[in-house]
Amino acid sequence: MSELVIREIGAGEFVRVWPFFQAIAAGGDTYTYPRDIGLEQARTIWTTPPARCFVAERDGQALGCYRLAPNQMGPGDHVANGSYMVAPEARGQGIASALCEHSLEQARHAGFTAMQFNCVVVSNTTAVRLWQRHGFRIVGQVPGAFRHAQLGPTDIYVMHCML
Amino acid sequence: MSELVIREIGAGEFVRVWPFFQAIAAGGDTYTYPRDIGLEQARTIWTTPPARCFVAERDGQALGCYRLAPNQMGPGDHVANGSYMVAPEARGQGIASALCEHSLEQARHAGFTAMQFNCVVVSNTTAVRLWQRHGFRIVGQVPGAFRHAQLGPTDIYVMHCML
Repeated sequence: MSELVIREIGAGEFVRVWPFFQAIAAGGDTYTYPRDIGLEQARTIWTTPPARCFVAERDGQALGCYRLAPNQMGPGDHVANGSYMVAPEARGQGIASALCEHSLEQARHAGFTAMQFNCVVVSNTTAVRLWQRHGFRIVGQVPGAFRHAQLGPTDIYVMHCML
Repeated sequence: MSELVIREIGAGEFVRVWPFFQAIAAGGDTYTYPRDIGLEQARTIWTTPPARCFVAERDGQALGCYRLAPNQMGPGDHVANGSYMVAPEARGQGIASALCEHSLEQARHAGFTAMQFNCVVVSNTTAVRLWQRHGFRIVGQVPGAFRHAQLGPTDIYVMHCML
């Protein structure tokens, strides 16, 4: 199997991740994006500075992506926020883990001193365990803050990692 | 003392709250806005739909304001987010409490089922106690997520209230 390459992309290449981005948003089980979000809105959120978008690809095929941005402005802009997506057909290959590791390194390099996730759906146990393996701790739990497509009102975790 | 009136305003009237908005942001002790935020950016954040802006005034003078918006999009848009400001010269008159009460009622009326604050600086004990009196619970604590102008790295609370 060829090497997984992770690199930054601009707005012009965002369309490469759009097929699985759209499928994941439509699933309504992990992200607080409109389930029918359009390409333009997704691209704006993921590629407008200060947000930066990275793609993971193998043999020229996009298999995952992440978004790195300040979690807040001003006196909160030393904390990064990360969002991650893996194409459904590419799960179980360690891509999310590679994306997370890469994002922590990029965040450090950009001068952030911590990373925070605001909205990890508690039913997404694979993701929760993965973030924990990479050093994230659960620092908050908000009751019913996510309307899960199958499970209905579901709690979300706030997760945090010092860099 | 004349009655305190709270009403919704549009972008055109935002300039009325700008003097104390600017002073509060510049203080660097409560908000994650750039300390030198400009009028245009502040107005955009506070008055661009779905965000809504309300002003509290007495005898035609703006003494406080709040912003009401969905805290997340899509499957998270049933949770409201609130931000509140009171003019420094009008503190201790119950204005923050009146704004909070008004915002909870407006949020209910708009169909939200909960309200969440993402970034309550723990050193802002007056605010923390006030939100608790209005039914908010601390559901998370993020270490060092706020660079306080006087205190340095300071924790923030995530607070939440069912409507």
